[in-house]
Amino acid sequence: MHLIRPVQGRPLTTSTPSLLRPTTSQAGPALTSEKYPQLKRNPSFKSLTSEDVSHFRKILSPGSVLSTLATPDAPATEAEELHAYNSDWMGKYLGQSRCILRPKTTEQVSQILQYCHAQRLAVVPQGGNTGLVGGSVPVFDEVVLSLNNMNKIRSFDPISGVLVCDAGCVLESLDNYVAEQDHIMPLDLGAKGSCHIGGNISTNAGGIRYLRYGSLHGSVLGLEVVLPDGTVLENLSTLRKDSTGYDIKQLFIGAEGTLGIVTGVSIVAPPRPKVQTVAVLGVDSYESVQKTFIAAKQNLTEIISAFEFWDRSSMNMVLAHAGTNARDPLADEYPFYVLIETSGFKKEHDDEKFSEFLEMVMEKGFVTDGVLSENASQITMFWYLRETIAEATVKTGPTYKYDVSIPVPQLYNLVLDTRQRLTDMGLYKEGSADYAVKEVTGYGHVGDSNLHLNVVAKEYSPTVSSALEPFIYEWIANHKGSISAEHGLGLMKAPYLCYSKGPSMIQTMQRFKQLMDPHGIMNPYKYLPAAEKSA
Amino acid sequence: MHLIRPVQGRPLTTSTPSLLRPTTSQAGPALTSEKYPQLKRNPSFKSLTSEDVSHFRKILSPGSVLSTLATPDAPATEAEELHAYNSDWMGKYLGQSRCILRPKTTEQVSQILQYCHAQRLAVVPQGGNTGLVGGSVPVFDEVVLSLNNMNKIRSFDPISGVLVCDAGCVLESLDNYVAEQDHIMPLDLGAKGSCHIGGNISTNAGGIRYLRYGSLHGSVLGLEVVLPDGTVLENLSTLRKDSTGYDIKQLFIGAEGTLGIVTGVSIVAPPRPKVQTVAVLGVDSYESVQKTFIAAKQNLTEIISAFEFWDRSSMNMVLAHAGTNARDPLADEYPFYVLIETSGFKKEHDDEKFSEFLEMVMEKGFVTDGVLSENASQITMFWYLRETIAEATVKTGPTYKYDVSIPVPQLYNLVLDTRQRLTDMGLYKEGSADYAVKEVTGYGHVGDSNLHLNVVAKEYSPTVSSALEPFIYEWIANHKGSISAEHGLGLMKAPYLCYSKGPSMIQTMQRFKQLMDPHGIMNPYKYLPAAEKSA
Repeated sequence: MHLIRPVQGRPLTTSTPSLLRPTTSQAGPALTSEKYPQLKRNPSFKSLTSEDVSHFRKILSPGSVLSTLATPDAPATEAEELHAYNSDWMGKYLGQSRCILRPKTTEQVSQILQYCHAQRLAVVPQGGNTGLVGGSVPVFDEVVLSLNNMNKIRSFDPISGVLVCDAGCVLESLDNYVAEQDHIMPLDLGAKGSCHIGGNISTNAGGIRYLRYGSLHGSVLGLEVVLPDGTVLENLSTLRKDSTGYDIKQLFIGAEGTLGIVTGVSIVAPPRPKVQTVAVLGVDSYESVQKTFIAAKQNLTEIISAFEFWDRSSMNMVLAHAGTNARDPLADEYPFYVLIETSGFKKEHDDEKFSEFLEMVMEKGFVTDGVLSENASQITMFWYLRETIAEATVKTGPTYKYDVSIPVPQLYNLVLDTRQRLTDMGLYKEGSADYAVKEVTGYGHVGDSNLHLNVVAKEYSPTVSSALEPFIYEWIANHKGSISAEHGLGLMKAPYLCYSKGPSMIQTMQRFKQLMDPHGIMNPYKYLPAAEKSA
Repeated sequence: MHLIRPVQGRPLTTSTPSLLRPTTSQAGPALTSEKYPQLKRNPSFKSLTSEDVSHFRKILSPGSVLSTLATPDAPATEAEELHAYNSDWMGKYLGQSRCILRPKTTEQVSQILQYCHAQRLAVVPQGGNTGLVGGSVPVFDEVVLSLNNMNKIRSFDPISGVLVCDAGCVLESLDNYVAEQDHIMPLDLGAKGSCHIGGNISTNAGGIRYLRYGSLHGSVLGLEVVLPDGTVLENLSTLRKDSTGYDIKQLFIGAEGTLGIVTGVSIVAPPRPKVQTVAVLGVDSYESVQKTFIAAKQNLTEIISAFEFWDRSSMNMVLAHAGTNARDPLADEYPFYVLIETSGFKKEHDDEKFSEFLEMVMEKGFVTDGVLSENASQITMFWYLRETIAEATVKTGPTYKYDVSIPVPQLYNLVLDTRQRLTDMGLYKEGSADYAVKEVTGYGHVGDSNLHLNVVAKEYSPTVSSALEPFIYEWIANHKGSISAEHGLGLMKAPYLCYSKGPSMIQTMQRFKQLMDPHGIMNPYKYLPAAEKSA
């Protein structure tokens, strides 16, 4: 046992690996429409014409319209320039949009949607395009409306901590901005260097500060939204309390752009903690991970800011693929690792609480070994282990990724049951490289009941896919979990919504969709099964 | 200066004065329909018949239907027995319902609404009936659906802190229940001994723990709701993270029963703090109240659980009318009082932080004098001062009550400007009892930008009413505030919604209302102006 006591103050920033887009030198992926042949282009949508592009050029400045269609006043853009908007960073999805619009103002977004609504042109809103479920790229020839050019901070009030900004602001920039005034954004995630706050809100992003600061449904105070018909919904309140009518903005949190486009955001930034400490602990069983979590909840309550875990298989991939920055901080190998972060305002108090907690969990045998950060670079290193797991799995092989919520006691059973199933089917053998599946690994946010299950295959194949789905979704439904904790539905999970929501809920969602977007132009083919036409 | 250091541990419960209904010996108030002659009964609603009552008697057990209409199988109930359901605790509103239904199950609620929907019978859902804006009592002859009999705890998970219960559970009972397992309800308010959790959710209640635990939009995980046509919306998730489709439940938080009836609730209870400390501070100006707030936010960040203030006028009324339990804890009189509460888990740490904070704010001159609780009874006494203000104003005279949100820097200006206006109009003179208005007083939750403005009159009169309204609502609109921070709209504020929400928002609300409740049977005449019929 070698618990190190922290000896000095440290800054709060933890640098996290950026989510890089794969290089285009890789063999290009198939079109989404080819990979999902069951998806048919909705014939009620208009096909883009050069007149449409000319119209958009009247609304926007010339450089803000990219289109492979030439117009009398401008030549066609090279298809290559549209690629980044048509594809996702994992290279899983590839759309065929011929027009990318990059408005600078809410008024321009309104004019675009008004036109698209009238003309029945389908639209995909796109933020930082860092999603994992194909929600932010087109399937067929939808127009892409990128929020890249809407990236201004509108106001910040240091008394209340309320930040008002454009939807296209990058999360990390916002966090740096409020940090200068001793505040912190209430969410943080691996993609922070690229993702937009509007995209975070539209996907109801969770991330690693969720345990401390809770849901966006609580911290978002107001939204400015352009509805599918171009109406600007002005709901950009900066008040913590407001009980005047239906809280309409809530519907757009997690709607993935299917009800309108979020253009402005009002969000509470809490006071920024002054000190941070991170421990990585070696744990012998998932049972002990749970016990450690309960103990942390009871003893570090007001200062705990993250409780993450990963398994041995995740650790092995990180150590193999995440470069020299990734080193195992413990002397021995463990089946499970726990990362606990505390964030507070008085170092001596936090250190004392953390030390007492660690002594207690080791005395009780929940934790076998552990290290406590003693400086900022150790904090970075410890977080690096956790945050590079996603990258490391992708470097190990094509990865089937599942982001699910499961009650804590059953959380890891999904990994075990999936391993067992793949073993029984002859697709996987632990420790062997001769099978279709190389690794079945689990990690995630224990504090939020949120598991990331990753299945690393030799190659994407129908055999592996059909072994995993709908098995995993059925397992989730049987355990009262959610098939998407924080990644959303997008294209990938839309067909499986029924595993998390019952008929009355899905029908009500469809009624809202029909009400707000009667022509269905907003981010089609995704999120929600289309309502059956009864009238 | 006499700061007392705390010397012993103390339990966390602070007993709060109960909101007692006024005795019926007072002269009965006029019918709401007489006080608001502009309200007309909607002729499309059916008038209750004894056949309807017979039908309800088939759905419910005999004792669960109170009706002044006799049926072949049961005699009429005395009108007196319906009084408590037809009137509010302040005696401001009086309805004329002839039928009270008290279902015990969600299935019964569903059957009732299915029938009312088909028959066009208007319905008022009623929880603890502790509201302040006339939202929970009928205006004309609406059927009252009381949730009194739905008061069972369904489950509690001590690992996640998730409580699932019937909507009719009393808030204080729930808090006592989770306290046994070391958890705390994320909200607390003066009416906790009577109010229902379903009513809290339907009115988006705030209260004194809001600063610490935030909005119900964040802490409610799921709701079971019976829609106006009787459909049961099953959305009783117990997961902290779930990003599968529109977050429909959010619409019912604060909808005041106009979109359906909340019958079941899933809510996160945080770990219950083990130690609590309360200080009452004497402050010379509202400017200094603000400075004290900012200092508290920065120095007590993770342990602060309440930051309340009240003015001298409030203190005077409390000392005059709140009995011998109310004693001024400070030697001198101050224009403003601040109450700060911290809740934490390690007494030495909290004490040290609180002491350092108090030394700092006194050294800087923000605070002139103060006392720190040294035992549980002092905590109770300090809170008693703050929590009896509402009662004390009502005992002083008929009170016009406004619950509003205003950005912190302008918060108290509303009190000053209202005093000035009433003075200019010859309706008020500070310190004199010879005018129509006796007191204009302000108190509330500074930490949440939430002011309670109370205007105590000699009697309710059109002169005073018209001096106050729409003046106050216009003032709020000009200062980008909200006309209802935490009390909702009900009957009282429905006409003034346009001072807080713009046309696009109100129109969207009306579209949702029309979609969910096409016959408008749910809690009519309140909340939202009826949409103008265009088709």
